[in-house]
Amino acid sequence: MSGKLSANEKPQDVPCPDRRRFLKSALGAGLAVGATTAVGAAEPPPAGTARVRVGLIGTDGHTGVILGTIPRLPGVELTAFAKSLPEDDVSSLKRSKAFSEKTRVYDHFEQLLEKEELDVVAVCLPYYRNAEASIAAARRGLHVVSEKPVATTLADLAALKEAVGRAKVRLTSLMNMRCFPPYRAARKAVQDGLIGEPILLTSQKSYRFGTARPWFYKDLKTYGGTIPWAGIHSIDYMRWTSGRKYLRVSAWHGNNDHPEYPGFQDHAGVLFKLDNGGTALTNLDYLRPETAPTHGDDRLRIAGSEGLLEVLGADNRVTLITATDGPRELELPEPVDFFADFLAEIAGEKEHLISQEDAFRLTEVCLRARDAAETGKWVDL
Amino acid sequence: MSGKLSANEKPQDVPCPDRRRFLKSALGAGLAVGATTAVGAAEPPPAGTARVRVGLIGTDGHTGVILGTIPRLPGVELTAFAKSLPEDDVSSLKRSKAFSEKTRVYDHFEQLLEKEELDVVAVCLPYYRNAEASIAAARRGLHVVSEKPVATTLADLAALKEAVGRAKVRLTSLMNMRCFPPYRAARKAVQDGLIGEPILLTSQKSYRFGTARPWFYKDLKTYGGTIPWAGIHSIDYMRWTSGRKYLRVSAWHGNNDHPEYPGFQDHAGVLFKLDNGGTALTNLDYLRPETAPTHGDDRLRIAGSEGLLEVLGADNRVTLITATDGPRELELPEPVDFFADFLAEIAGEKEHLISQEDAFRLTEVCLRARDAAETGKWVDL
Repeated sequence: MSGKLSANEKPQDVPCPDRRRFLKSALGAGLAVGATTAVGAAEPPPAGTARVRVGLIGTDGHTGVILGTIPRLPGVELTAFAKSLPEDDVSSLKRSKAFSEKTRVYDHFEQLLEKEELDVVAVCLPYYRNAEASIAAARRGLHVVSEKPVATTLADLAALKEAVGRAKVRLTSLMNMRCFPPYRAARKAVQDGLIGEPILLTSQKSYRFGTARPWFYKDLKTYGGTIPWAGIHSIDYMRWTSGRKYLRVSAWHGNNDHPEYPGFQDHAGVLFKLDNGGTALTNLDYLRPETAPTHGDDRLRIAGSEGLLEVLGADNRVTLITATDGPRELELPEPVDFFADFLAEIAGEKEHLISQEDAFRLTEVCLRARDAAETGKWVDL
Repeated sequence: MSGKLSANEKPQDVPCPDRRRFLKSALGAGLAVGATTAVGAAEPPPAGTARVRVGLIGTDGHTGVILGTIPRLPGVELTAFAKSLPEDDVSSLKRSKAFSEKTRVYDHFEQLLEKEELDVVAVCLPYYRNAEASIAAARRGLHVVSEKPVATTLADLAALKEAVGRAKVRLTSLMNMRCFPPYRAARKAVQDGLIGEPILLTSQKSYRFGTARPWFYKDLKTYGGTIPWAGIHSIDYMRWTSGRKYLRVSAWHGNNDHPEYPGFQDHAGVLFKLDNGGTALTNLDYLRPETAPTHGDDRLRIAGSEGLLEVLGADNRVTLITATDGPRELELPEPVDFFADFLAEIAGEKEHLISQEDAFRLTEVCLRARDAAETGKWVDL
């Protein structure tokens, strides 16, 4: 959609000024404990309580994160759903408990936005189309959960920021690894000063490519590139757990083993200079053998001035060595329910763990890192 | 010593044309099994067998690799030793079994080279002085084992290559991690085709800084930088195990926690583009807490088109996952005795596992990687 919108174009709709208050009332009962998976099975909302009307746009990405939460939150309903493409087979998706007989299904997201009264949309289209749908939703005053990256070009990102800012809606990105207990434990350990100043950050995302990856992974333009698509998680969690910022980036990526997906990058390496003079690296690959015991092998390591911590995602473990104590395993907190946490902020109950600024900033960092790999040059961030 | 030598300067001495034959005779008996630690305790050389006369120059670096081997090889003797500095306390070094009452000790390596008849020298000076001593030894026709990096500037490296080439002696570098069983097993697995084409290489060297690091680590000019000094191991073993070559490099390094060693880099990250379009990264740090269970935490991971292997150096383990089989541990070969392996090549018995070309090339790659970190630019290799 790059270039389709001018930055000065006016939104087609203005957000309802009462929406935040409305959502607060709707979510009050259900979200009091909404930030954890301890949320119980859904009960009908108390009499007189308004509903939260969710629209799901698209068949791709982490639809399960949204659909898994809805049935557990009283008062939250999947009002409508739009396919990525009219020919999408959505029979398995519709077996989710979030779907009810009342959930209306559309072939095109534009129809959904035109015809439905909604509060929140989740956008899970092929990645290059997400910004377009998020902008359209924002212009109708809807809060947006976008699959990451929230845009696949810097021009789309600028248009999205403009539309969201103008509509004064809240956008978050599905950087949901912040919800995972090991990364939360790592962040807390850093905040508690257990490793001193973070200096060297390293991370890994390694995954199976799988046997039925959709068409849009065949072209960098339609899937966005492995750095913005997969790397955004590790690039985010290195930054979020350490509290450091990225100043410059260099990167390399390539496709050595997937000729049938010619525009796909099956591996990448990214190197950052940090704001304190430290260094961060992430390595990404879709080369994990199908025989491996887990789908993914995510890792994080932070070497600090006073200690060292390491997350082994596949084992759901964090180990810590400090200047005074040998290795020990950190206790893990409860996981956070990503979508419930977002709805809780909208209801005015708490801050969602992904700020809108971070949703945009991490997208920008990753798009520039991808450009650094494409150009073979360092890029300022 | 940069700039002290012109490239056209003639060597002060020419190598003895019979030296190789001489060494072959001397080493024949002792080195028949010299490439492994299975070498038995030293026995007196058979009557009439010539000796191999070793000179050790310097008190720093991995002197133990040389001193540990000498007593186990019949006919190989530590003829002479020169301190790094006249005031060096060498009492503990002299407790090595390699020292005998006959071993002569000098305050300066120049005296040692002037006065002794030797066959081989091992050079373990503060790193910036190694090229100078190696050049002087080469000019006297001596084979050289140099601590790595073999030079700390590109100018020194060029002068060293010229001197060694002209004298037709053999130089090796103490990149002795090639001798370690896990890396040898990894290399064999790649050569046997178990992981297909290596695509993404990652590695780590993480060490304790320690409490009594010598003065020359305080200045990049005297220790050479963490990338050439420590990174050369992982940069070498990524390349050696995978069989890939480096085409371009970007890097970053810094000192965040060692103000008392202002020119030291306590961490670094290096990113390479490979000759097959693949990617390699290494992360280096001297931030490992003193409480850690091991001094170092070396790692290697190679993701290939048909499998994945991973070395955990601290555990002395290699795990392999292939396209057809889930994780298994590789059997490890016997370790190689680095110095015995070098002497065996000189005796004409086998090829030493570090070619002279690699000793030079890896130094060059690391010096250029250090420059990439200093300039913040990609560098062609």
